[in-house]
Amino acid sequence: MELVTSIPRLRELIRDARRLKLSIGCVPTMGALHCGHGALIERARAECGLAVVTLFVNPIQFDRKDDYEQYARDLEADGAFCRQRGVDVLFAPSEAEMYPHPAATFVDAPGLSDRLCGKFRPGHFRGVATVVAKLFNIVQPDVAYFGEKDAQQLAIIRQMVADLNFPVNIVAVPTVREADGLAVSSRNRRLSEKQRRAAPALFRALCEGRRLIGCGERDASKVKTVIRRVLAAEPAIRLEYAEIVDSHFEPVRHIESDVRIMAAAWIGSTRLIDNLLAPVGER
Amino acid sequence: MELVTSIPRLRELIRDARRLKLSIGCVPTMGALHCGHGALIERARAECGLAVVTLFVNPIQFDRKDDYEQYARDLEADGAFCRQRGVDVLFAPSEAEMYPHPAATFVDAPGLSDRLCGKFRPGHFRGVATVVAKLFNIVQPDVAYFGEKDAQQLAIIRQMVADLNFPVNIVAVPTVREADGLAVSSRNRRLSEKQRRAAPALFRALCEGRRLIGCGERDASKVKTVIRRVLAAEPAIRLEYAEIVDSHFEPVRHIESDVRIMAAAWIGSTRLIDNLLAPVGER
Repeated sequence: MELVTSIPRLRELIRDARRLKLSIGCVPTMGALHCGHGALIERARAECGLAVVTLFVNPIQFDRKDDYEQYARDLEADGAFCRQRGVDVLFAPSEAEMYPHPAATFVDAPGLSDRLCGKFRPGHFRGVATVVAKLFNIVQPDVAYFGEKDAQQLAIIRQMVADLNFPVNIVAVPTVREADGLAVSSRNRRLSEKQRRAAPALFRALCEGRRLIGCGERDASKVKTVIRRVLAAEPAIRLEYAEIVDSHFEPVRHIESDVRIMAAAWIGSTRLIDNLLAPVGER
Repeated sequence: MELVTSIPRLRELIRDARRLKLSIGCVPTMGALHCGHGALIERARAECGLAVVTLFVNPIQFDRKDDYEQYARDLEADGAFCRQRGVDVLFAPSEAEMYPHPAATFVDAPGLSDRLCGKFRPGHFRGVATVVAKLFNIVQPDVAYFGEKDAQQLAIIRQMVADLNFPVNIVAVPTVREADGLAVSSRNRRLSEKQRRAAPALFRALCEGRRLIGCGERDASKVKTVIRRVLAAEPAIRLEYAEIVDSHFEPVRHIESDVRIMAAAWIGSTRLIDNLLAPVGER
């Protein structure tokens, strides 16, 4: 595995791989790699000739300075993680390499970015779309892998790729969960032991919502009430939002076809998100 | 020359050219081709293995519906123009091919896009940057050619390429002018004979400004006053703005190094723009 920090050097490696007619797979990450990233990397490793992992804690997607500063950084551990999984190139540029000048050109998806998590994290998805566009232009992958845990991010990237004609195939990889259902996330490390015990309530609440929909419930507000009730039983958790959305990530009132239940919640100063696809059942 | 209207077919041709190790040059246009475009095409033809001209009247960059509707369209003439100049591929997609859904993801350069022409054409440069990003992702050129006449557009595209790491080299080609100095533009066709006779006053005014700066004038407002005075002598012309900007396209009050004089003016219902680089002289 080669650890690359410079864009010109990465472009050289990509050129070499193209010459050898290797397909290029890219897994964009912010580091603090865990088995969720592991699932993305394994797919890229299995499906592509050159597996590239990018590691960049992107400042312009953080709406809170403390979250940016607290974000776990351990290049040594992440390097070992990638090496063990057969990654060919770990691209870990500095902030100066990615933003030699303050960012002045942005990729923005106004509608989709302003809803759900976007309502609570202004500028977040603009930062995400912008850095992913940059990484796509640097790595020029044939395929890029993203986790379903960040469902809204995935939808925005899919829309960006379609709208801006990026020649990249987007592959979604299912959310990896702990034994108790908690979606794996680098932010889970910030939870105290007590908070960690409370955290799976978020997944439990979504499961309860999914069960109701599967049983035939069609009124989104009733499903949300049940989700809120499950979470209210766990005083350590403060729900930020729970929403039932259609395939365009538009909130629905009446559930007509398969929907996704999206939620964000706070435990202390840690924000967790999760989502579940909820197929409609027969009433 | 192959006339291509579908994105998948264009991607095939690009793939074939890459296999033959041809460099790819792209000249993005909105058609109504004239000798200004000719200068861009000749550069692309001379410097690249595959010369691609794109022809697309981009609806999302028009701030006025009448301007969009009046925009000259003549695919047959433009096809002949390209064929005569040795163009390999003329890519002329339909609106449905470029925007199968209403545009929902945009490339935006907030600062630079809001000044000068951007102040008077809200959304214009966002539309330009977005369609150029799309064309870059479709054509994947090594080099793209743009005219200096659209200096602010050129600056925004250069900034976009740098900020979003597009692997494209941007080449600026000097403005082509009529014998009387009027910058060649497809909009010149809309001028009546009388308006056409009045139009070169715009260039004359910029020349007068450049002369003053060359003679040592350092006060931008004095230069602008002279520009306004020259244009005031031509009642058919209504100046929209005249501005003296530095290399970052920031308006300056005190002229310290080489600047660019930018102007936009109306003749009847036709809007013309022009600009000139003005090197500083000794006082």
